[in-house]
Amino acid sequence: MVSRLTAIYHVRTKGAAIAERARAIAVEQSVEMPVAAIDDRFVLDEIVGKVEATRALDKDLFEVRVGLAAVTVGHDAGQLLNMLFGNTSLHDDVLLHDVELPTDLVALFAGPRHGLSALRRRVGADKRALTCSALKPQGLAPAALAELAKKFAAGGVDYIKDDHGLADQDYSPFAARVEAIATALAAYPRTRYVPSLSGDLGAMRRQIAAAAAAGVDTAMAAPMVCGAANFHRLVEENPGFAFVAHPALAGAARIAPPLLMGKLLRLLGADAVVFPNHGGRFGYSPETCRALARAALAEWHGLHPTVPVAAGGMTPDRVPEMLDFYGADIMLLIGGGLLQARERLPDETAAFVAAVQSFPYG
Amino acid sequence: MVSRLTAIYHVRTKGAAIAERARAIAVEQSVEMPVAAIDDRFVLDEIVGKVEATRALDKDLFEVRVGLAAVTVGHDAGQLLNMLFGNTSLHDDVLLHDVELPTDLVALFAGPRHGLSALRRRVGADKRALTCSALKPQGLAPAALAELAKKFAAGGVDYIKDDHGLADQDYSPFAARVEAIATALAAYPRTRYVPSLSGDLGAMRRQIAAAAAAGVDTAMAAPMVCGAANFHRLVEENPGFAFVAHPALAGAARIAPPLLMGKLLRLLGADAVVFPNHGGRFGYSPETCRALARAALAEWHGLHPTVPVAAGGMTPDRVPEMLDFYGADIMLLIGGGLLQARERLPDETAAFVAAVQSFPYG
Repeated sequence: MVSRLTAIYHVRTKGAAIAERARAIAVEQSVEMPVAAIDDRFVLDEIVGKVEATRALDKDLFEVRVGLAAVTVGHDAGQLLNMLFGNTSLHDDVLLHDVELPTDLVALFAGPRHGLSALRRRVGADKRALTCSALKPQGLAPAALAELAKKFAAGGVDYIKDDHGLADQDYSPFAARVEAIATALAAYPRTRYVPSLSGDLGAMRRQIAAAAAAGVDTAMAAPMVCGAANFHRLVEENPGFAFVAHPALAGAARIAPPLLMGKLLRLLGADAVVFPNHGGRFGYSPETCRALARAALAEWHGLHPTVPVAAGGMTPDRVPEMLDFYGADIMLLIGGGLLQARERLPDETAAFVAAVQSFPYG
Repeated sequence: MVSRLTAIYHVRTKGAAIAERARAIAVEQSVEMPVAAIDDRFVLDEIVGKVEATRALDKDLFEVRVGLAAVTVGHDAGQLLNMLFGNTSLHDDVLLHDVELPTDLVALFAGPRHGLSALRRRVGADKRALTCSALKPQGLAPAALAELAKKFAAGGVDYIKDDHGLADQDYSPFAARVEAIATALAAYPRTRYVPSLSGDLGAMRRQIAAAAAAGVDTAMAAPMVCGAANFHRLVEENPGFAFVAHPALAGAARIAPPLLMGKLLRLLGADAVVFPNHGGRFGYSPETCRALARAALAEWHGLHPTVPVAAGGMTPDRVPEMLDFYGADIMLLIGGGLLQARERLPDETAAFVAAVQSFPYG
């Protein structure tokens, strides 16, 4: 018997239709053809998706558990997503809610190479929340971004990431930007710069090499933009780098945020994962955010915990509330909320950092 | 003044809120920070997204046109998607409906290298619809898939594609599969085999090289799985290959299918694009399918037309109806509907092919 994974869907349909709908999803996500036309014993026994269980969650809403052979995934993170949700993502009555993976598949992808403890250690933090800010707006030249970075670092922030809109544009090419910012931050060895990688895998490899040459050891990428397999390849190839995953384009496919950001991106090696915190510019509920953070941190096949990074329109006055909500195992990302302070940016940053450092963690 | 693109969103909100919501989207998709905190003249004038127009489409449903600087895209297909929908994909109330691009950006990505006429020419077809079938189920060994391919080819089908679940699995490694199938099809020079590429960019490059070595000149990939930039890189690097794009992971309804499959994938170089036809296993409406096919074929910046490939549970008895609906500029893909014929597969395939070839195109 081959090892198996379970994809868990939430399906909206009239009650009477659910058994047939569940079977159709199991077929769609595996053999994609009439099962009656299949003779091959191995395919029938192992490859055809199997509905393991169906249960009602609410009126016309069901949980459907589909078992799939792990061998269908090959050794490919993209194919993992394809098996979980490739065609079914095109059905608007289905959401991919969760997944259970066999140990061999988890071992194949192996999760974060660093994770929470290492991300604390790198910036000299004890068991407290981490702080982060963002370099923006896009359109600024490298020198202006480097000036901003220096101010954040002077305020004592732990991680400074590129805005995910900063790519390899003519007005701020990646290599020139990284060089300028890394140079500016040389005087602040406890602050880590996190440049945003973009482009095809070749471009991202060149960007990582340029970052490493400038002394950078952390980078951000958007796995749903660059492709899960390419993200995972970068993680494998750069064991010294810590990777922050950005959720850009993650919304289009209707994968539950706690699964995608808290679990799948962790599996593929994200040491930290940015998500839009409730009450900011995005509509995630407190429950979704809590589930996402818990998934990222939970004991799961022995993988390192991934740092949840609460972002998306946060402000310094929300620090106590967010730390009450998440506890110490969180990174708080405040970008625009600090940039608004303008000439008082280093002071505001220092106040943000102090609020996080002095918080009475429970 | 730099060249600009326009992203067109459909936004669901109470009428009174739309002006503010539109401004928020324009900021989210560009500078992602409070505009009041920006001093830089270039950023304010050119980079901050601008709401060009807002109009009501229906009760609580609005079209919002946002202008963005083309220079923010750099030279990167992934960044194009990021600028169009990166963070806004995380908002449930917004759909990316359409896009208008400046000529310089279109020229950068350049569209299909071959397109409709070339895909006809390669299989010796005159101005008629093209035929396609699919090798499945996944789980079969290369020899069994090669046997199937031979039967489809004996029936005279134009293109034989891998099921998109066929990746690089242990039970059917890509190289062995392509070798077996290409060998089996050597006796049928008018039929084209379309292997499915998967994995990271490096793996896909090795797969294309193996396919080329076996005499194959057409390949399929799923841009939303492998990343748009990697798909586009393969198109650029392999001008002799025709590329079929598969919609796996494209999600339902958040990026309008006519835009994503008919326009954006065409822009990135898809010579053909598979989509789920109405009345099959998927829920696209006839109107969506018609709009998608029209977008793929329409005159657009002088790009080659992309062949729409109607798929997803089609059956031979629907051929006349589908050709009435789409006309001659379509590829009909029937997979499971032919495989059900079992030992009569070559005959059923021949009947499908004859129905398409003898159809009285208007």
